[in-house]
Amino acid sequence: MTTAREAMTAGQPYNQFDTELINRRVKVREALQATNQLADNQQRNAGYQAMIKDSGADFFVEAGFKFDYGWNIHIGDHFYGNYDMTFLDTCPITIGSHCYFGPNIGLYTPVHPLNAKARVADVEMGAPITIGDNAWLGGRVTILPGVTLGNNVVVGAGSVVTKSFGDDVVIAGNPARVIKTIDNGATGDAAAVEQWPDLLK
Amino acid sequence: MTTAREAMTAGQPYNQFDTELINRRVKVREALQATNQLADNQQRNAGYQAMIKDSGADFFVEAGFKFDYGWNIHIGDHFYGNYDMTFLDTCPITIGSHCYFGPNIGLYTPVHPLNAKARVADVEMGAPITIGDNAWLGGRVTILPGVTLGNNVVVGAGSVVTKSFGDDVVIAGNPARVIKTIDNGATGDAAAVEQWPDLLK
Amino acid sequence: MTTAREAMTAGQPYNQFDTELINRRVKVREALQATNQLADNQQRNAGYQAMIKDSGADFFVEAGFKFDYGWNIHIGDHFYGNYDMTFLDTCPITIGSHCYFGPNIGLYTPVHPLNAKARVADVEMGAPITIGDNAWLGGRVTILPGVTLGNNVVVGAGSVVTKSFGDDVVIAGNPARVIKTIDNGATGDAAAVEQWPDLLK
Repeated sequence: MTTAREAMTAGQPYNQFDTELINRRVKVREALQATNQLADNQQRNAGYQAMIKDSGADFFVEAGFKFDYGWNIHIGDHFYGNYDMTFLDTCPITIGSHCYFGPNIGLYTPVHPLNAKARVADVEMGAPITIGDNAWLGGRVTILPGVTLGNNVVVGAGSVVTKSFGDDVVIAGNPARVIKTIDNGATGDAAAVEQWPDLLK
Repeated sequence: MTTAREAMTAGQPYNQFDTELINRRVKVREALQATNQLADNQQRNAGYQAMIKDSGADFFVEAGFKFDYGWNIHIGDHFYGNYDMTFLDTCPITIGSHCYFGPNIGLYTPVHPLNAKARVADVEMGAPITIGDNAWLGGRVTILPGVTLGNNVVVGAGSVVTKSFGDDVVIAGNPARVIKTIDNGATGDAAAVEQWPDLLK
Repeated sequence: MTTAREAMTAGQPYNQFDTELINRRVKVREALQATNQLADNQQRNAGYQAMIKDSGADFFVEAGFKFDYGWNIHIGDHFYGNYDMTFLDTCPITIGSHCYFGPNIGLYTPVHPLNAKARVADVEMGAPITIGDNAWLGGRVTILPGVTLGNNVVVGAGSVVTKSFGDDVVIAGNPARVIKTIDNGATGDAAAVEQWPDLLK
């Protein structure tokens, strides 16, 4: 027997009006409303961490964080997220260690059918989002359902990421494309002083 | 005799410091401030519906909804809008039935002159936005003044829609372009299982 | 002797865990949390102006304004900013007179190294953003570190500005490019009636 929650998490069509799902959404919205108004950093972050499935040491998120369930959010150690991130977590959102996210990041896992008849029948599916270690997402990055990013990926501010990319790349644009590979090896010291704005000029 | 409100709604240059307009903006901002803090779905949505001109059954909008006047917002039945939508409604914003909007949608009807001398004289105009039935707007979609979308249109997350499009298309990008036509006819069942992330890979 | 604040403002690598910087961030977040909830326009704008370094007459910003320090924000007379602007001001953000900003503007001065080893050591740098007089930034414009815009610049809604531009241009797209030059001279009256949506069709 598959519950609506299990089907949703697996990316299969599910009943979004299932009682367990509705109750969780209501609870999370109430808790987010209160937590987002906490100016005290420790209190606010403890409130977020209590709602999300997995998170680690050195978790710091600025106010305005929103998500659907929290059940499907998994974040590694040393995470920093700036203002107003929105994670739609009907499917798993998995983020590695040492990731830095700018303001207004949108990670969206839900998918509707393209066919209007199927869509207005309230069919909803989804696909997971996975981000490796040491990512830097600039402000206002949008990531679509089903995307996987490798380790050490830098995403330019304002980019829309529509497909997956491997390790050690800078991606940017709408849709995002590789604009540079990064040397993160033992001989990569010179690259350490490269700065994002110089890269784009 | 044309009032500032009538000129504004018609897209003509108008006096934005008109008393009727200022009073309405103040009232709406105060009401939005209070309504956006209501975690209770029924109370919050009743608050939004009391401010907007037309809306129908099954109206559901998440918190963070903002608009200028509400006077010029017309939304059909079965509407779902996710977090943090911003509708600038100096001119009419008309949305059909069974539309689903992702988070951070921006519908902007105001227009300023390109000429700096005219612009700094506080001239403001506008152009309406019209969206047909069964639209699905992905997260962080921006729609510019004067745009009309037909029925059954899907707009990819992060797109900027600068011109009008007809029925049964998927549009995406900045500026948005048609990336696929959708079969919504009697023989369109196969398309029902097509998913957005597969389309973009 | 250079303080962390001085190094940060100069765009040099700095210690973001410096006590002076932490204390200011905490104070600003608490003040913004309170100020953003003021529906009264005069009270809210007085609150913002008390936190930012320089601002002039006719300063009007809608709710949802966020920034890091306020220390490095310099805004000329007659400024209008719509809902939910986010200014990351580790380095100076300098805005001329008579500028109009749409909702959801993001001005980001912080920069991290592209090299993952350097980045996860919490190195942060930055580059200033400078915007001339009479700018009109459409909604959801993103401006990257190090960008300078001249006078009389119009930026299309949803654009991502990755490099500098001179006077009298309309720029749009991701990355933003010049799509039109504007005649702002004595013979420029005809251009005054040009409207943004017509331009893009």
